[in-house]
Amino acid sequence: MSTKIGEVCRQALKKIIPSSYEKEKIQSLAEEVRSRVSSEVDKIMSDVQVIVGGSVAKDTWLKNEADVDVFMLFPPNLSKEKLGEVGLRAAKKALKDWSQRERYAEHPYLEAEMNGIRANVVPCYKAEQGKWLSAADRSPFHTDYVKAKFHHRNLSDEVRLLKRFMKGVGVYGAEVRVGGFSGYLCELLILNYQSFHHTLEAASAWKIGTVIDIENLHERRFDEARRFFDAPLIVVDPVDLNRNVATAVSSERLGEFIMASRSFLTEPSLSFLYPDDAIPLSASMLKKRLSQIGFDLIFLVFKGEEAVPDVLWGQLYKSLRAIKKLLIHNDFNVLKVSAWSDEKKKNILVFALESHLLSASKQHIGPPIDSKGAVRFLTKHVGADSTVIGPWIEDNRWIVCIQRKYTNVASLLQDKLKGGGRDAGVAKKFAEGIKDSIEILVNEEVLGIYSADEDFALFLSDFLQGKPKWLG
Amino acid sequence: MSTKIGEVCRQALKKIIPSSYEKEKIQSLAEEVRSRVSSEVDKIMSDVQVIVGGSVAKDTWLKNEADVDVFMLFPPNLSKEKLGEVGLRAAKKALKDWSQRERYAEHPYLEAEMNGIRANVVPCYKAEQGKWLSAADRSPFHTDYVKAKFHHRNLSDEVRLLKRFMKGVGVYGAEVRVGGFSGYLCELLILNYQSFHHTLEAASAWKIGTVIDIENLHERRFDEARRFFDAPLIVVDPVDLNRNVATAVSSERLGEFIMASRSFLTEPSLSFLYPDDAIPLSASMLKKRLSQIGFDLIFLVFKGEEAVPDVLWGQLYKSLRAIKKLLIHNDFNVLKVSAWSDEKKKNILVFALESHLLSASKQHIGPPIDSKGAVRFLTKHVGADSTVIGPWIEDNRWIVCIQRKYTNVASLLQDKLKGGGRDAGVAKKFAEGIKDSIEILVNEEVLGIYSADEDFALFLSDFLQGKPKWLG
Repeated sequence: MSTKIGEVCRQALKKIIPSSYEKEKIQSLAEEVRSRVSSEVDKIMSDVQVIVGGSVAKDTWLKNEADVDVFMLFPPNLSKEKLGEVGLRAAKKALKDWSQRERYAEHPYLEAEMNGIRANVVPCYKAEQGKWLSAADRSPFHTDYVKAKFHHRNLSDEVRLLKRFMKGVGVYGAEVRVGGFSGYLCELLILNYQSFHHTLEAASAWKIGTVIDIENLHERRFDEARRFFDAPLIVVDPVDLNRNVATAVSSERLGEFIMASRSFLTEPSLSFLYPDDAIPLSASMLKKRLSQIGFDLIFLVFKGEEAVPDVLWGQLYKSLRAIKKLLIHNDFNVLKVSAWSDEKKKNILVFALESHLLSASKQHIGPPIDSKGAVRFLTKHVGADSTVIGPWIEDNRWIVCIQRKYTNVASLLQDKLKGGGRDAGVAKKFAEGIKDSIEILVNEEVLGIYSADEDFALFLSDFLQGKPKWLG
Repeated sequence: MSTKIGEVCRQALKKIIPSSYEKEKIQSLAEEVRSRVSSEVDKIMSDVQVIVGGSVAKDTWLKNEADVDVFMLFPPNLSKEKLGEVGLRAAKKALKDWSQRERYAEHPYLEAEMNGIRANVVPCYKAEQGKWLSAADRSPFHTDYVKAKFHHRNLSDEVRLLKRFMKGVGVYGAEVRVGGFSGYLCELLILNYQSFHHTLEAASAWKIGTVIDIENLHERRFDEARRFFDAPLIVVDPVDLNRNVATAVSSERLGEFIMASRSFLTEPSLSFLYPDDAIPLSASMLKKRLSQIGFDLIFLVFKGEEAVPDVLWGQLYKSLRAIKKLLIHNDFNVLKVSAWSDEKKKNILVFALESHLLSASKQHIGPPIDSKGAVRFLTKHVGADSTVIGPWIEDNRWIVCIQRKYTNVASLLQDKLKGGGRDAGVAKKFAEGIKDSIEILVNEEVLGIYSADEDFALFLSDFLQGKPKWLG
C-alpha cells in the first residue's frame, strides 16, 4: 500500500472507529431495545423471535453514527396487515419513553430516537431462505452472512473506510433520492476485495455491467446475469441469487464512484472522505452568475405534501424525466435537469435550457418521396396556414418549414401542465398540486425562493457548479 | 385513357408537334450542316463519318425548340488532343457564317447559332459498342437504337408529351444545375411504357432504386444492378449494360417527377406542361416576407468567372454541401440551402437557418463513465476557462456545459472562409474568389443585390416559396 494512502487511511480510521466505550454502550443499548421489544411482543403473540441486525450487529457502523436496527421475525402464516399492526404496537410500547415516528417502506415500521441515537424496529417474517414474504425478510440472513464471513478476519474497519469514502464523495445511500450504495453493499464489496484499498483499485477498472458474484451462485454465467438484472452494477446477493444488492445504484453514482476511486488512488487525500462543507452563493453572487452562464434556467415550483421519501423522490424523478422529454420533443435544448424538495410543502423541478425561446419556424421532415404517405403529407402542408415555406425534397424525403406551436418554454409548460400534466407523464401524486399551484419561474425570478430557503440555495448553487465536489 | 387526360394531351400536342414545314426545314438544315462538316473534315482527314444525331435524327424535338446535333466519328487510333483540334477546326470552317462558341464537355465541341437555331458539332470516336473512348461515343448508338425501335410505331409524339411535361414541372435536363431527365432518357421511358400516360402511371408507383432494363441486359438481377449503379433511378442503357442513363437524376427531381405524375393523373391540367411564368416579389414585398418568415437568411456572395456550366454547378453544389455541414457541425439549425450563379461574375450561396445566433453555452457530451478517456476528459474540462458548469454524469457518460466558440453565424463563416475555405471543403476553384471578395449578408442586407439582378430576384422568390411550382 502506498505510504500516502496508508497515511490517509490511518488518519481516517481515528475518526471512524467507535471507541470501546461507544461500542459497549451501543451494543448494550441495542440489546436493551431488543429485549424490551421481545417482552412486549411476547405479550401479544408467542414464537416471535427478536434480533439485533444492521451495522450494530455487524460492527460496521461509523463512530457517532450508529443506528440500532431491531427485527421482529413473525411466523409466515401471519397476514401482512396483522404483522404491521402487531409489530408496531409492540414496538411502540417497548420504546414508549423514546420519541417515535411511524415510517412506511413496503410495510410500517417504527423509527424512534433517544439521546441522538436512532432505533428502527422492523417487523418481518421468519422466512425460509429464498421464500421471501416481505422486503425486510432477507435482512436477518444478511446479518448472519456478514457476521459469519467477518468472523475470521477483521474487515469491519475496511468497511468503515469504504462507507466514509462513499459518504464523502456523495455516493452512499440506497434511498431513491441518492441512488447510491447501501451499507450491506459496502460490506459485500469489502468481502469480495478484502480491503478498502483493493476495492477502490477494482472499482477504478469497473465497466458498466460489472458482475460480482461472491458465492458464484450464477456459476460465471455473467452475460445471463447482466441480461437478467439489467443494471449498471450487479452484485449478486449471497443469500438470494435473484437479487442484485446494487439495484439502487444509478449510473451517475456508479460513474462518480469509479472516477472518485481513480482520483483518490492518483492523489490520496482525506478531503475525499471529509469534504469541505458546501456553502451557497449569496443572492447577489447568484444574480451575477445567472447573468454569465449563457443559458436559461426554468423552475417549476408546486406545492407538495408529506410522503414516504422514496415514494416522493421516485415520483419527482419520474416527473422530471417526463417534462425533460416534453421539452426535448418541443425542440428545446435541455442542458441539465434536477429536482429539489423540502419533503413537506414545496417541490421544485429545475431545467437548464440553451434558451427559453425558439425561432418562429422550424423544419418538419415528412415521408419518403416514394411512399404513399407523400400525398397525404403534401395535401396537409401545401398552402396550409402553418406552412412557412415548402414542401420541398431533401435526402429522399419531403420536407416543409412550418411555424412552431411554442416558441417560449413558459407557454409550452403553462399549456401542458395547466390540467396537472398527467398527459405529459407527470406523476399522479403531483397532478393536483401542479394544477392548483404551479409557478413557472425563469432565471432571476427564482431569487425570492432562493433567499428564503437555504437548503434550496445550497441545491441551486450545487446545480450551477454542476460537478461532484471532489472533482478539482 | 380518361377523357380529361386525353383532352389535355390533344391540346398539348398541337403546341409541341412541329409542322411539316418546320420538320422539313430542320431536317434539311441538319443535312446541310452535316454535309458541310463532312466536306471540311474530308479536307483534313479521310475516313471520318459525319452523321446527324439527337432529337432531330430521332424526330423527338419539341416544336420551335430544335437543336441540330451533328457527330463526327473519328477513327479510334487518333489522340484525344488531335480529335478535338481537328474536329473543332473542321466544324468552325464548315459553319463560318454562323455565330460560334467553343464549348467543353469531356473534350471541346462547337456550338453555333443561326436564325435562332442551335447546332452542336461534336467530335467523337467511331468506337465499337462497349469499347467507348470518349463520353460522346455512345450517342450514335443511341440514335440508331431509338430510330430502329421507333420505326414500327409512332412513339415520337409520346416522347414530346413527356419532354414537355418534364420541362413544365422542372425536372427536364441532365445538366448538373438541374439534375433531371435527359432527352434520351425520355425516349427510353416511352419505349418501355409505350405512352406518355402509361409512363406517368408507372412513375406514380416508382420506388427509390427502381430498375428499368429494357433489353434485359442484367437478366433481372435488380439487386445487383442497384448496388452497382447506386442511384435513385436506374435505367440501363440498351447499348451499354454498364451505364445508367438516369445517372444524372437526383432524388429531388425524381421525387418531384413521381409526385407531379400522381398529381397530374388525379387532376390533369395543361398547367403542368405550361406553368405560369414565374414573377419575382417586389423588393418591398421581399422585405415584408423576410420580416414574417420567422427564420434567418444568410447569403455568401463571392466573385466568379466563366466556366463550363456543369463544372461550375458541380463545384457550387459541393461547396454548398460543405458549408451546410460546417454550419450543422457548429450547431446551427439549417432549414434549407441553395446556390445561384450568373455563370459569369457572381456566385451566391443561400442558407436558411432557424436563427443566425446561438446561445453562449452548450452541452458537450464526453466519454462513457467506464472508459479510460474519462480521466482525460475530466482533466481537460474540470475548472477550464471554457467550462460553464460540470462535468457531471448522464446516461452513462460524462457531460460538461461549455462556452460556444461561435454564437454568430457570420463570425463562424468569416473565420472559416477568410483563407478561402479549402479546409471547410469549399471547391478549390472558388478559394481565390472567396478569399478576395467574400461578403456575408444577413436577411435584408441582400436587398441591394435583389433589386439589381432580376434573375437572382426570381431565384430568391422561388427559394422563399420553397416548393415546386406545380404544387398547389
